[in-house]
Amino acid sequence: MKAIKDSVHDYITLDPVAADLLDTRTVQRLRHIKQLSTVRLVYPSASHTRFEHSLGVYHLAANALDHLGVDGDRARHLRAAALLHDVGHGPYGHQTEEVIRRRTGVDHDEIGGLLREADAGAVLRDHGLDPERVAEIVAGEGELGQLVSGELDVDRMDYLVRDAHHTGVPYGTIDHERLVRELRYEDGTLVLDEGNVQVAESLLLARALMDSTVYRHHVSRVAGAMLERASERLLEGDADVDVAGFRRMADHDLLVALREHVPGLGERIEYRDLYKRAVWTDLSATPADVVELTHEAERDAEREIADLAGVDEREVIVDVPGRPAFTEAGSRVLVDGVPQRLEDASELVSGLRAAQRAGWRMGVYAPESETDAVAAAAEDVLGVRAGPIRD
Amino acid sequence: MKAIKDSVHDYITLDPVAADLLDTRTVQRLRHIKQLSTVRLVYPSASHTRFEHSLGVYHLAANALDHLGVDGDRARHLRAAALLHDVGHGPYGHQTEEVIRRRTGVDHDEIGGLLREADAGAVLRDHGLDPERVAEIVAGEGELGQLVSGELDVDRMDYLVRDAHHTGVPYGTIDHERLVRELRYEDGTLVLDEGNVQVAESLLLARALMDSTVYRHHVSRVAGAMLERASERLLEGDADVDVAGFRRMADHDLLVALREHVPGLGERIEYRDLYKRAVWTDLSATPADVVELTHEAERDAEREIADLAGVDEREVIVDVPGRPAFTEAGSRVLVDGVPQRLEDASELVSGLRAAQRAGWRMGVYAPESETDAVAAAAEDVLGVRAGPIRD
Amino acid sequence: MKAIKDSVHDYITLDPVAADLLDTRTVQRLRHIKQLSTVRLVYPSASHTRFEHSLGVYHLAANALDHLGVDGDRARHLRAAALLHDVGHGPYGHQTEEVIRRRTGVDHDEIGGLLREADAGAVLRDHGLDPERVAEIVAGEGELGQLVSGELDVDRMDYLVRDAHHTGVPYGTIDHERLVRELRYEDGTLVLDEGNVQVAESLLLARALMDSTVYRHHVSRVAGAMLERASERLLEGDADVDVAGFRRMADHDLLVALREHVPGLGERIEYRDLYKRAVWTDLSATPADVVELTHEAERDAEREIADLAGVDEREVIVDVPGRPAFTEAGSRVLVDGVPQRLEDASELVSGLRAAQRAGWRMGVYAPESETDAVAAAAEDVLGVRAGPIRD
Amino acid sequence: MKAIKDSVHDYITLDPVAADLLDTRTVQRLRHIKQLSTVRLVYPSASHTRFEHSLGVYHLAANALDHLGVDGDRARHLRAAALLHDVGHGPYGHQTEEVIRRRTGVDHDEIGGLLREADAGAVLRDHGLDPERVAEIVAGEGELGQLVSGELDVDRMDYLVRDAHHTGVPYGTIDHERLVRELRYEDGTLVLDEGNVQVAESLLLARALMDSTVYRHHVSRVAGAMLERASERLLEGDADVDVAGFRRMADHDLLVALREHVPGLGERIEYRDLYKRAVWTDLSATPADVVELTHEAERDAEREIADLAGVDEREVIVDVPGRPAFTEAGSRVLVDGVPQRLEDASELVSGLRAAQRAGWRMGVYAPESETDAVAAAAEDVLGVRAGPIRD
Repeated sequence: MKAIKDSVHDYITLDPVAADLLDTRTVQRLRHIKQLSTVRLVYPSASHTRFEHSLGVYHLAANALDHLGVDGDRARHLRAAALLHDVGHGPYGHQTEEVIRRRTGVDHDEIGGLLREADAGAVLRDHGLDPERVAEIVAGEGELGQLVSGELDVDRMDYLVRDAHHTGVPYGTIDHERLVRELRYEDGTLVLDEGNVQVAESLLLARALMDSTVYRHHVSRVAGAMLERASERLLEGDADVDVAGFRRMADHDLLVALREHVPGLGERIEYRDLYKRAVWTDLSATPADVVELTHEAERDAEREIADLAGVDEREVIVDVPGRPAFTEAGSRVLVDGVPQRLEDASELVSGLRAAQRAGWRMGVYAPESETDAVAAAAEDVLGVRAGPIRD
Repeated sequence: MKAIKDSVHDYITLDPVAADLLDTRTVQRLRHIKQLSTVRLVYPSASHTRFEHSLGVYHLAANALDHLGVDGDRARHLRAAALLHDVGHGPYGHQTEEVIRRRTGVDHDEIGGLLREADAGAVLRDHGLDPERVAEIVAGEGELGQLVSGELDVDRMDYLVRDAHHTGVPYGTIDHERLVRELRYEDGTLVLDEGNVQVAESLLLARALMDSTVYRHHVSRVAGAMLERASERLLEGDADVDVAGFRRMADHDLLVALREHVPGLGERIEYRDLYKRAVWTDLSATPADVVELTHEAERDAEREIADLAGVDEREVIVDVPGRPAFTEAGSRVLVDGVPQRLEDASELVSGLRAAQRAGWRMGVYAPESETDAVAAAAEDVLGVRAGPIRD
Repeated sequence: MKAIKDSVHDYITLDPVAADLLDTRTVQRLRHIKQLSTVRLVYPSASHTRFEHSLGVYHLAANALDHLGVDGDRARHLRAAALLHDVGHGPYGHQTEEVIRRRTGVDHDEIGGLLREADAGAVLRDHGLDPERVAEIVAGEGELGQLVSGELDVDRMDYLVRDAHHTGVPYGTIDHERLVRELRYEDGTLVLDEGNVQVAESLLLARALMDSTVYRHHVSRVAGAMLERASERLLEGDADVDVAGFRRMADHDLLVALREHVPGLGERIEYRDLYKRAVWTDLSATPADVVELTHEAERDAEREIADLAGVDEREVIVDVPGRPAFTEAGSRVLVDGVPQRLEDASELVSGLRAAQRAGWRMGVYAPESETDAVAAAAEDVLGVRAGPIRD
Repeated sequence: MKAIKDSVHDYITLDPVAADLLDTRTVQRLRHIKQLSTVRLVYPSASHTRFEHSLGVYHLAANALDHLGVDGDRARHLRAAALLHDVGHGPYGHQTEEVIRRRTGVDHDEIGGLLREADAGAVLRDHGLDPERVAEIVAGEGELGQLVSGELDVDRMDYLVRDAHHTGVPYGTIDHERLVRELRYEDGTLVLDEGNVQVAESLLLARALMDSTVYRHHVSRVAGAMLERASERLLEGDADVDVAGFRRMADHDLLVALREHVPGLGERIEYRDLYKRAVWTDLSATPADVVELTHEAERDAEREIADLAGVDEREVIVDVPGRPAFTEAGSRVLVDGVPQRLEDASELVSGLRAAQRAGWRMGVYAPESETDAVAAAAEDVLGVRAGPIRD
């Protein structure tokens, strides 16, 4: 059996399906999509890719199946789904997800269409696997779907430890082997076995700390917002790029396309010459109508602010992230023989939820020279406080 | 300058005072006191010692002083205190602390007496340092004392990462270099600089998770309680061991003394043939009079339970730990320019406190064959529920 | 002072020059050049970049200067040189070096021209540093040059540990902190202090094992040869890419340019659909005229083989690497007070040299379906044995 | 199945035999024998034990059996042997091996006698295993014996990575998972599969570098020689300790016994107040009669030197180690389908052997104040050069 050396899990042994899937362009493309997109502008060593992450998820899935005693056909479908779970991502992963969703209604974990058309679907059929079933698992459906996309999924376990390894930020270093060993099915629901409330808490805490320190670092958010706006201009411009083509791009394709067709933002992203925060403010203390701004209203506000500040409208970005999700709170643990949701079993969850809400911030970004004018205009237009802003 | 290789911090460079202190018997003795005493009966690779931990604390203290801009005489006293901070420990460290305190009223961080008499004090004086001042720092007094024994001390930072390295449990792996870099003095109080609420939280979370998984693992608690009872019998017996001599023992001395003079418990500890839990129950749901049992009352209860269960009184151990402390909740962080206690700055602390209280348990332990009888008797005598007990 | 988190060295503190250099396009471009180019087709987690490596070299250089007691102006020039030492690299680093050298005569460590024209030179001058002097250090000239580009340079120390961290292959994990601590100048020559023969050997051994396992892995060599040929066709074709523009490309530019202008090889590289080895043979047992084949003769041989095998000439690649260098053999160590070349001080060097020569192999590569025909033709044309070829 | 957390291999799953063996006093005793005995006087974090090492060897053995396809009864015997392979060690492991061998003729890997008498033998029989067969495997006999005690055994693989982890010296960090995966049986001989010459070399190199840096560090050798002499005096004295009892001691027993019965050396060892080198000289340049000194002749020489130097005879230790072994040179690798000894397949081995011979040194040790007198006397008596001695 083929084995691949990984810096996180050491050797990863591939089953025959995985070995063949790996050679498809659908999977090889993931070599060119970075796992953490704009985060590497903050943590320079975080240039790992969705390709190695997909191998890691495959590996943990295979181990989890061994511990769960699942084998045969079901296991083969699950392992294939684990390897393919990210092939639906556009360039720069989550960073362009909204751009694609707004135009197509399709999420990155809807890969049925892709498997119907692409080489990976053919490989699955050659090995007697059903691409539709694989796509359903990737979308989190059914008993097996929980293992790839649920509160206790191996996707999360791999990305936490991998992102910790590559950023150097230790908070993501969970005890993934214990998590995998303690998984059980109770009436079709994936749970952690008795005695693992702290283990479930540790997963939640690792995610929360990585969120504030890494995933939502303000520099990465600024760059991400710039990338999103630039992508929209690329699709709206006369560059002959449609959303279907856009979705299939890899990072390098997008970087070159932006430099050519949206040169201002494109070059700023390429050379990390980023906008700065003009406004950075607590969303829990922000007027409700701002918190619930639609995408169109956001862009209207940008124009209004730019107008008032006397700058080009392309130089203002309003960035209101959605309310922080907290999926892991719903993970289930056996307590005295009964599966309980973590938020019921742990006193920690509500505190963590409050802490996360307290860190929920909106931003308005502009070129460094314009931040003062833009801040004043934004306070006016949105009725928010600009600061304090600290590095 | 002399440098020592450490598995956690790599090279540790020693100043001349440290190099000379290292050669004293007072410090060399720490080679023979394990950092985690009975924890290694659960995590077999955790056999690291207070000697290497002391070097680690010295190293972090030296780095913190550099970042804080403290040098000269104050720095020399502080570094010496860091290296010496654990010389007051008895054999098996915290595990015998209560035994010693009950008889002498002295804590492990009261080292003034030791420095007055022992070789280490002479070394300090030879280098122009004041042993009393060093002792005060170890006891946590003054501005500098906070760095060695306070809410943000380097002692905690070292033991968390070191214990993680040696047990293999990742939760202790904090970002210690960031913590050290972000320390500041504000009006004589040690604080973390602006923007570090999450960093302070991470320290608290690491401690909490290590507590439940490692430091208070029930097997270690059982062994620790056995060790404490055996130590008391050693001191009360006719073995000619007084508490002064006891306090100066190292682990190997105690192990041999117990085997000779308290053979039953002594051999059980040496060969990990431990008592089992007859009772293991939530202290927050326990009658207040049990929660506040004095040491004497605990021993009376043991006799009563033994009597009722028909077993030798030496075969029952009642173990009611004190209410979990939560020192780190008082660590201070700058928020918008003002130092705040972490528990005021972070929504997480109250949740964590509640979680820790929920994990606060008392135990009654006995030889495996007697646990049923002892459980029944203990329910009777103490008015508590025995279980559920799970491995 | 600004600090950057690195997954290998933890926090890297930047001096003001470095902080400003970091913001130039000249340095930011290194974010888009992978450290190990085609190696990541074998070790998927090895997608780290020359940007983070440059930070690492800067960090080790700064530490080495501290231990050597070099400061002031000399130290500032050296640190700048360490940060800039790789800006002369073309896309895919060493993999396109020959292509550029053949057309311009310029090596990647000749950066004088670059600093004269580009933003980085201006930053240096703004801080009162001399760009020419920095360029000389990068080229390895003078006392300081040895530290950046010599037998004991910090470049090598960083890439070995970094490549080990990212590939997962442990052989590169040297004791870099000890190496940095033991550096001395003896009459202007950089040496390792007394007692470090084994430390010098360990550096040599690490390089040798990483060479055979990672840097010269046959799959990486096949992909590298394909990339080199594709780059040449790009420059010779009608794509309006000249060598000056080529040299300034980043990886993503080249990948997109190749896919557009050299689609066959370009897509094969992008999706890892590589040629296979038709010939793989020991160069020490190969006719001297083959070993010394010029670049032009190599291409003539390709055409001749293609002709004989009846395949398109673009489908045959002859790859004869230069004799393995062994720079570290010249590193100097103090032995009984006298600096000696490692090859004189260590019995190991000659054995290692022989071992490396024994692993020196040439290859002829072709699409999988054509390897048999190409192998037969190559045996005929070059007078070499084709195999054995094993995976 | 029971699982134990290990800092090197993460979770180690125990089969039922191993779980029961673990509870015997024979195995529990290994908790009290340090893996590296006196090495921890140089590398303070190296206080790991033969207990955790035994678990590691068990784990690698189990993995190797999986890859080799060996199961059933043979595998159960092998796994038990892996766990028990070190139970024959005396206190301080290899450091007292010679003392025991001279008196009993028995090596640490002769455990047949032990299994006949002790609890571990009974456990084996209870599980239907044959203690004699287990003892034979531990002694390296038969096909399976090679896996526990041979040139490619898992004992070596575990101790190299474990000692690296605990000392902080990286040289031992081999690619143990690859080694375990590439093992094959060829006609009953354990070999590494095709393509692994470098992997075999890396094992050899790791051992050689750990040897010079860690295992034979001069401070550890001085302490080891002191321990050996002290042990002999303990056995020869009137302390009522016979060799049978001595062999069954653990480290703490010996430390206490030495302090009581051989107080001078005993306290020096306990508090690291070591003798210094009076002579430290290359054995390859030493008269043949010195190189081949018997144990008795060594002690005669000590007396003669002491006499001449005018010091107590207990204050001189002559330490002439045996010629360095080089077992791994005989490990076998498949090359073009044929098993070859590594020394025939690799050009490196002869160089390494020469390097190791060059590092082969004898020492004469004495209290610091006496080294000059002892050096002069030793030059006279033994006809060797005293120095140069450097730290």
